[in-house]
Amino acid sequence: MSQIAKTPSPPYYVVIFTSERTDTEEEYQETAARMLELAARQPGFLGVESARSDGMGITVSYWKDETCIRNWKNNMEHREAQRLGVEKWYRAYFLRVAKVERAYNFEAK
Amino acid sequence: MSQIAKTPSPPYYVVIFTSERTDTEEEYQETAARMLELAARQPGFLGVESARSDGMGITVSYWKDETCIRNWKNNMEHREAQRLGVEKWYRAYFLRVAKVERAYNFEAK
Repeated sequence: MSQIAKTPSPPYYVVIFTSERTDTEEEYQETAARMLELAARQPGFLGVESARSDGMGITVSYWKDETCIRNWKNNMEHREAQRLGVEKWYRAYFLRVAKVERAYNFEAK
Repeated sequence: MSQIAKTPSPPYYVVIFTSERTDTEEEYQETAARMLELAARQPGFLGVESARSDGMGITVSYWKDETCIRNWKNNMEHREAQRLGVEKWYRAYFLRVAKVERAYNFEAK
């Protein structure tokens, strides 16, 4: 099954979260999986794509609009995960919110 | 050294390229490295972040504006790489162009 998100036609929003982890593994995998599960149930969630290599992680999530992003940001369980993130799991991160204006895709026959 | 791109304050643009590779390795690594090198020399290039795991690759490149993105897209050597990409290296890809409106970052002390 393809891991590429099947997003609708633009416009929609994207949250690009790039991160570098600490060495602390405690609860990280469980929480990351739980957050994906929780995000997917939020109103306006359109999909997510994630990859990690050489200590660098990129998670890109797609959303209907900015209100949906704000609601997800303020979700109580997510807020607790954010708190633990800066306390334990991330050495550094960059979070960018952007409006998708154009999109193209290709699939080999 | 951090692999997280040190982008300026928004607004700026981002190209999110998510891909699934074929099994064809021929010339792929060399071309990917060459494209990174070439992109970094383009006017308006602000940075790039890349990760690949479980067959899923995500490359996020940052640009001053849409004109810079269009110029890079039309670069002759890049066009040849794009042609080889759909012919040999990618099973599927999704390319999204978005305008970064907000950004936050964190770095542990």
